Amino acid sequence: METMVRWEPNAQGRLGQAALELFVERGFEQVTVAEIAERAGLTERTFFRYFADKREVLFAGAEGFQDLFVSAVAAAPADAAPLDAMAEALHAAAVLFTSHEPGVRRRAAIIGAHPDLRERELIKLATVARAVADALRARGVPAPAAALTAEAGLAVFRIAFERWIATPSGPDLAALIAESLDDLKSVASGK
Amino acid sequence: METMVRWEPNAQGRLGQAALELFVERGFEQVTVAEIAERAGLTERTFFRYFADKREVLFAGAEGFQDLFVSAVAAAPADAAPLDAMAEALHAAAVLFTSHEPGVRRRAAIIGAHPDLRERELIKLATVARAVADALRARGVPAPAAALTAEAGLAVFRIAFERWIATPSGPDLAALIAESLDDLKSVASGK
Repeated sequence: METMVRWEPNAQGRLGQAALELFVERGFEQVTVAEIAERAGLTERTFFRYFADKREVLFAGAEGFQDLFVSAVAAAPADAAPLDAMAEALHAAAVLFTSHEPGVRRRAAIIGAHPDLRERELIKLATVARAVADALRARGVPAPAAALTAEAGLAVFRIAFERWIATPSGPDLAALIAESLDDLKSVASGK
Repeated sequence: METMVRWEPNAQGRLGQAALELFVERGFEQVTVAEIAERAGLTERTFFRYFADKREVLFAGAEGFQDLFVSAVAAAPADAAPLDAMAEALHAAAVLFTSHEPGVRRRAAIIGAHPDLRERELIKLATVARAVADALRARGVPAPAAALTAEAGLAVFRIAFERWIATPSGPDLAALIAESLDDLKSVASGK
């Protein structure tokens, strides 16, 4: 029974939590996969069942983030304007991030301190924008407007998110997103 | 006089031209720096005076592209709205790209065929967006609106540019940018 795999409850979540703690304590570069596995009370082999490397621990949530945007856009009322469908997705993201605020802030601090991780984040967000554009096209939005709505909407998110991260005791994320969305509307109307 | 450097007229331009030709003929991966230098009638040593590696030949124009955006934003009339200053930069970019159309299309084909080059391009455009946001702030635009204008403006550019590349005998780049800018205005006004 050599290939039998012991089932570990919530192994992925424990590894993610252990990695974030270690990255904050010692710095991202200094942490090894062996240390992450040890802190989580698991083996390296278990780590590699879930993640290709320690960097991927930080981006494991990207798929869920993308699904959340795509589902919210798809679920918006059929007669909602493209930006209103996008606004529903932004609201859903604000709710999710706020409910996991400590972990989200820890992750943002690690990514913000490493140019290559920031690049990775940028690339993941571009992938999300493409998926959102597809979801908007599926609602009947013409391709260029769908792409623009997705890109501008993700820019709204990113700018609000960065302000939220920079001001831990400032306005909540939903309020910053609403403000950023208003900024987009003002800017586009030539104010 | 071992360290004496022979001056080669327009070495950088010749190397860039030779590299683009070879990338198109043989595929980006297959081309070596030695071949690029040979095609340009120069030495490898001269190549490395201008470029860190063959990939950087494709991104050597990024700084000029950024300067063009930043200068156009800075030169817009003092009372121009942020998006109008951005529109001047987009217009300047359309003029530049149209005047170098064959090389621009060749470069886009090479980058489009390689995911890692597309990622590099994305990262360079994000740097341009930050520089444009700085230029807008220098005009007195508040930080979040400056960042949004820059991001949305670059999205306008990217979407128009992709349509232009995809349709070689279609509308010209300036027309596509104007259309994409109108799309942004419509989308943001909730249409």
